[in-house]
Amino acid sequence: MKLTDIYWHLKSDIGKIEKDIEKNIDTNNPILQEASTHLLRAGGKRIRPVFVLLSAQFGNYDINEIKKIAVPLEMIHMGSLVHDDVIDNADLRRGRKTIKSQWDNRVAMYTGDYIFARAIEIATHCKAQGVNSVLADAMVEMCLGEVEQIRDQYNWNQNLRMYFRRIKRKTALLIAVSCQLGALAADAPRKYQRALARYGYYVGMAFQITDDILDFVGTEKELGKPAGGDLIQGNVTLPTLYAMYHNSSLKGMITRHLDQKNMDKQELDEIISLIKESGAIEYSKGITDRYLEKSRKALEGLPNIQAKKALIQIADYIGDRKF
Amino acid sequence: MKLTDIYWHLKSDIGKIEKDIEKNIDTNNPILQEASTHLLRAGGKRIRPVFVLLSAQFGNYDINEIKKIAVPLEMIHMGSLVHDDVIDNADLRRGRKTIKSQWDNRVAMYTGDYIFARAIEIATHCKAQGVNSVLADAMVEMCLGEVEQIRDQYNWNQNLRMYFRRIKRKTALLIAVSCQLGALAADAPRKYQRALARYGYYVGMAFQITDDILDFVGTEKELGKPAGGDLIQGNVTLPTLYAMYHNSSLKGMITRHLDQKNMDKQELDEIISLIKESGAIEYSKGITDRYLEKSRKALEGLPNIQAKKALIQIADYIGDRKF
Repeated sequence: MKLTDIYWHLKSDIGKIEKDIEKNIDTNNPILQEASTHLLRAGGKRIRPVFVLLSAQFGNYDINEIKKIAVPLEMIHMGSLVHDDVIDNADLRRGRKTIKSQWDNRVAMYTGDYIFARAIEIATHCKAQGVNSVLADAMVEMCLGEVEQIRDQYNWNQNLRMYFRRIKRKTALLIAVSCQLGALAADAPRKYQRALARYGYYVGMAFQITDDILDFVGTEKELGKPAGGDLIQGNVTLPTLYAMYHNSSLKGMITRHLDQKNMDKQELDEIISLIKESGAIEYSKGITDRYLEKSRKALEGLPNIQAKKALIQIADYIGDRKF
Repeated sequence: MKLTDIYWHLKSDIGKIEKDIEKNIDTNNPILQEASTHLLRAGGKRIRPVFVLLSAQFGNYDINEIKKIAVPLEMIHMGSLVHDDVIDNADLRRGRKTIKSQWDNRVAMYTGDYIFARAIEIATHCKAQGVNSVLADAMVEMCLGEVEQIRDQYNWNQNLRMYFRRIKRKTALLIAVSCQLGALAADAPRKYQRALARYGYYVGMAFQITDDILDFVGTEKELGKPAGGDLIQGNVTLPTLYAMYHNSSLKGMITRHLDQKNMDKQELDEIISLIKESGAIEYSKGITDRYLEKSRKALEGLPNIQAKKALIQIADYIGDRKF
């Protein structure tokens, strides 16, 4: 089963949201236009709008009102992708960047800023009270997560707590907020809003841990990039933390080789193999499953409508996700 | 007279605002803390909070409510300063940047994002309706202005309309919004809000043109940097536009020398002298004075309270500003 099979009935509303995003980014400025439409054409899973739409079905579903939440949430995600691409460390390590690409970086930064500001502006048109406050809070946390990620890069002595807090801020919170605000925009009962926020948080955590697992077990074709990218970039994820804890000589190896930032392919492959053999993948998979179980539990008090079934299917899908 | 002499009676409330900014930026994250407090200690004219406080005096002045506008507005200005410093072109031209400073750039970008998000979050606590929408709109325009500035850099064929639109977006709008929202937060009559917004716009335009004049006529000591910085960075400002229009051989000279991006000091000094001799400074000063005259006119319908006198004095001050 593909993810889109689960929410095929939302296809038309997702289309409306994408059209709205395109309209909102379309400015008279050719630079902004180019940068932004490039991003739109790249597609993406549109997972945040899907959570908004499904959660809104627990209240009075009015696509014109719900759009004002779904569009900003996806735009905030897009803005963060644009900023992630600015001065990418991986690029840097390949050597000096040209002035041209530096110039592009500057445009990318302001394009991200523009997308964020536009997103907030759209959300101010929501009828529901409190949307902007929740949205701004989520953005604050996302920024803290990004700064934490930079601070914790190449820090092989960090603990599990730091990892979980980072992925909560980087990923889980925006998904939790998507669920919460979808229900809020549809004026669903407060109890439902809270339950959906909890569901979104757990699913978001599972989603990110799965991403971090796939970075080790996925093939280059599946991932669209070579495996071990997180290791190379110094992003310390759950499998690495587990493996280093249970194999101190591996930790020494990682520290020695990866801190040089010019490790050869053979060394990297060996480290990846050792991590895989350590039981780290099974352990991480176990944590994912626990989060997914909690996400299903969070939905228990909600009415048995089609959207609930779809949310459970998404949790199941994440549990089985191969890439 | 110094600017602070005009609003000495606001000193205590400005102090409260600065304290609030410090509190709001103080996080547990040492990187963010360092970057942000550095910015605070650098001080600044706090011109935006001053406009908020003075405009609020045309309504029910309650510092606890007005703070929720003044703090975000100053933080948005601070966030934009942080992003201005990211990958500064002037630095770039001095050659390759180190990886360390690139890393700092990335932190600076997310610090700016964090300050923006936090600012919006604070503004959501305002009792007055419509604050967030005005604020988000202003941010959208600011980002467009930044992108325009990059696009128009080293474009010696641009016209006056492009220059005026750019400084409106870059500077004037946030000052207009400071006046407007100060009055809104104090629940001043709509008529006053609009008049103050107009005042702020005109004063903001005059303020930026004066900045652009001073970049030519100021001494290195006064400016804190060598004169002609805008020319070197390819920022085409009003004096340059006037001079090129009235002296086509000067335009050729500028195009030839400045596009090489490695012009020597003597050539630069000669170009600056020719711009000064062209009448461009007097012309630009004339435009400034017209904007200031309009700003004083905008205040005519407002009651004759002390704040009105102070706003007029600020306009007078900008007209006389030497650095």
